[in-house]
Amino acid sequence: MAAVSLSVSTVQPLGDRVFVKVSAAEEKTAGGIFLPDNAKEKPQVGEIAAIGPGKRNDDGSRQDPEVKIGDKVLYSKYAGTDIKLGSEEYVLLSEKDILAIVQ
Amino acid sequence: MAAVSLSVSTVQPLGDRVFVKVSAAEEKTAGGIFLPDNAKEKPQVGEIAAIGPGKRNDDGSRQDPEVKIGDKVLYSKYAGTDIKLGSEEYVLLSEKDILAIVQ
Amino acid sequence: MAAVSLSVSTVQPLGDRVFVKVSAAEEKTAGGIFLPDNAKEKPQVGEIAAIGPGKRNDDGSRQDPEVKIGDKVLYSKYAGTDIKLGSEEYVLLSEKDILAIVQ
Amino acid sequence: MAAVSLSVSTVQPLGDRVFVKVSAAEEKTAGGIFLPDNAKEKPQVGEIAAIGPGKRNDDGSRQDPEVKIGDKVLYSKYAGTDIKLGSEEYVLLSEKDILAIVQ
Amino acid sequence: MAAVSLSVSTVQPLGDRVFVKVSAAEEKTAGGIFLPDNAKEKPQVGEIAAIGPGKRNDDGSRQDPEVKIGDKVLYSKYAGTDIKLGSEEYVLLSEKDILAIVQ
Amino acid sequence: MAAVSLSVSTVQPLGDRVFVKVSAAEEKTAGGIFLPDNAKEKPQVGEIAAIGPGKRNDDGSRQDPEVKIGDKVLYSKYAGTDIKLGSEEYVLLSEKDILAIVQ
Amino acid sequence: MAAVSLSVSTVQPLGDRVFVKVSAAEEKTAGGIFLPDNAKEKPQVGEIAAIGPGKRNDDGSRQDPEVKIGDKVLYSKYAGTDIKLGSEEYVLLSEKDILAIVQ
Repeated sequence: MAAVSLSVSTVQPLGDRVFVKVSAAEEKTAGGIFLPDNAKEKPQVGEIAAIGPGKRNDDGSRQDPEVKIGDKVLYSKYAGTDIKLGSEEYVLLSEKDILAIVQ
Repeated sequence: MAAVSLSVSTVQPLGDRVFVKVSAAEEKTAGGIFLPDNAKEKPQVGEIAAIGPGKRNDDGSRQDPEVKIGDKVLYSKYAGTDIKLGSEEYVLLSEKDILAIVQ
Repeated sequence: MAAVSLSVSTVQPLGDRVFVKVSAAEEKTAGGIFLPDNAKEKPQVGEIAAIGPGKRNDDGSRQDPEVKIGDKVLYSKYAGTDIKLGSEEYVLLSEKDILAIVQ
Repeated sequence: MAAVSLSVSTVQPLGDRVFVKVSAAEEKTAGGIFLPDNAKEKPQVGEIAAIGPGKRNDDGSRQDPEVKIGDKVLYSKYAGTDIKLGSEEYVLLSEKDILAIVQ
Repeated sequence: MAAVSLSVSTVQPLGDRVFVKVSAAEEKTAGGIFLPDNAKEKPQVGEIAAIGPGKRNDDGSRQDPEVKIGDKVLYSKYAGTDIKLGSEEYVLLSEKDILAIVQ
Repeated sequence: MAAVSLSVSTVQPLGDRVFVKVSAAEEKTAGGIFLPDNAKEKPQVGEIAAIGPGKRNDDGSRQDPEVKIGDKVLYSKYAGTDIKLGSEEYVLLSEKDILAIVQ
Repeated sequence: MAAVSLSVSTVQPLGDRVFVKVSAAEEKTAGGIFLPDNAKEKPQVGEIAAIGPGKRNDDGSRQDPEVKIGDKVLYSKYAGTDIKLGSEEYVLLSEKDILAIVQ
């Protein structure tokens, strides 16, 4: 089998999952969010890179996602699965782990 | 990528979440709430700064939030995610973690 | 921001929560309830001071509370959030944590 | 506030709860139930003293209780909340913790 | 209060519960079930002595029990509540803890 | 009471349970499944010997089982209850613990 | 009983399960996914080899799977049951444990 060639554009999340590019640490304080010392690592800022088709309801229909590609979001650092593509860090999250849109 | 510029007005909570400005400790006792010693850190007073669109029902409709911007609320100190904007402390809570409106 | 002025009349519980004034220990034995030694601190007597709008059903309607202001109730001491207003003790409970009306 | 005067007739259980008078230990063996040594304290015999309005269904209606006042019942000793009224022991149980009617 | 007189015929299980007479150990191997050494005490053989009215559905109707009085059944030894009537051992089980009818 | 005479044909599983004859260890590797060393005891091969009437839906109807008598199946070794009939090993499983049909 | 002859084509997953061929470690980095050191073993790449009929809804209908045979997928390494067929590694997963399609 040939090698799997992966890049941002080839990642298609399933269900209610979203694929988020993690913002570098400098960015998080430049704009104004200062995380309290005792919780410094909890909220994280990122940008939506890809979105799944939405959570499936019991009747088979889907819920429209509340975020769109390009949205800057706050999410819990401990949620989801970390993935590195080249030198960039990404995370695969369930949409329910996104706390707020910040821009 | 440019730095993310964050301020209170740019935080838009998702789902049933609310964005609450934490009241300073002096305020909490000035008006009359004295917390018992053994539970001093549990209930916390804050003011609603932003409100999500409401909890989504199974049929896709949303429940109207029970609070509005400006409400003073009691919530459990251990709930939600702490965020600092400049010198002010905020918390992102699920509406169900709000115990009561106090004014 | 001005101090938050809190009193019993300003506490409005949310959802299925009730605000209960804790009865003093003497009262609990004067009227006849003697708690067994091994469970002395479990059931507690109080009086309903304020009531939320009721638990929200899935269709958005609300369930009528089973208690009313002034009811004397038994509840589990370990349930809810303790609050002190001046020298009086209160507790914010979910209605489901109330075991019985006792008068 | 005057003392709360409590007696059996003033206890009105909420929801699916029942108020049960615990039978004395002698009674439990006189009639024939011998509990195995390794489980001696698990099942308990009592008599229904008061019954709540029944479990509320999702549509607001209530389920009729399966027991009635005066029924002798078997229940798990570890369920519910113990209460002593004078020299008599009582327990507040959810109806689902009652295993069987025994008479 | 007079002693509670209990016998098999006076035990009426509630809900989806069944009252099962535990088969003596000899019986379990005579007919062919040999339990593996490492699980010797897990499955247990018994005979249905009394049956509750069945599990209540959300709409208040009941599910017909899958077993009837006299059925020999396999159940998990660790399920339910043990009761001794005279020299005989019984167990009060939820019907869902019955694994199979064996005769 | 006479001894309970048990054989494969007398075991009738309840609900969504199935009765599975465990395949001997030789069989599992002869045909091609080699379990990795670190998971050697997890998946297990067996043959369906008896099937319950199916899982009951909330409305009282039943779901058709996905397996039939004679199917070779993979299941988790840690699921269900082990039973020995003569020299043969059997297991009583919930159908949801069956991972795949393998023939 | 004859030996069970197993090969990829004979594995038919049940319910919402999928049968996935695990990609060799080289492949995972060749195309661009570099897993961060502290999470190196968490996300795993594989290829869908077989698909169950889909998750059964409460009304007996089934949800269409979101993946198809041949899809390259990311899944959590700790999910599912590992199986070795000859020299190849496979895993039986619930579809909900698949994070994203990656090609």
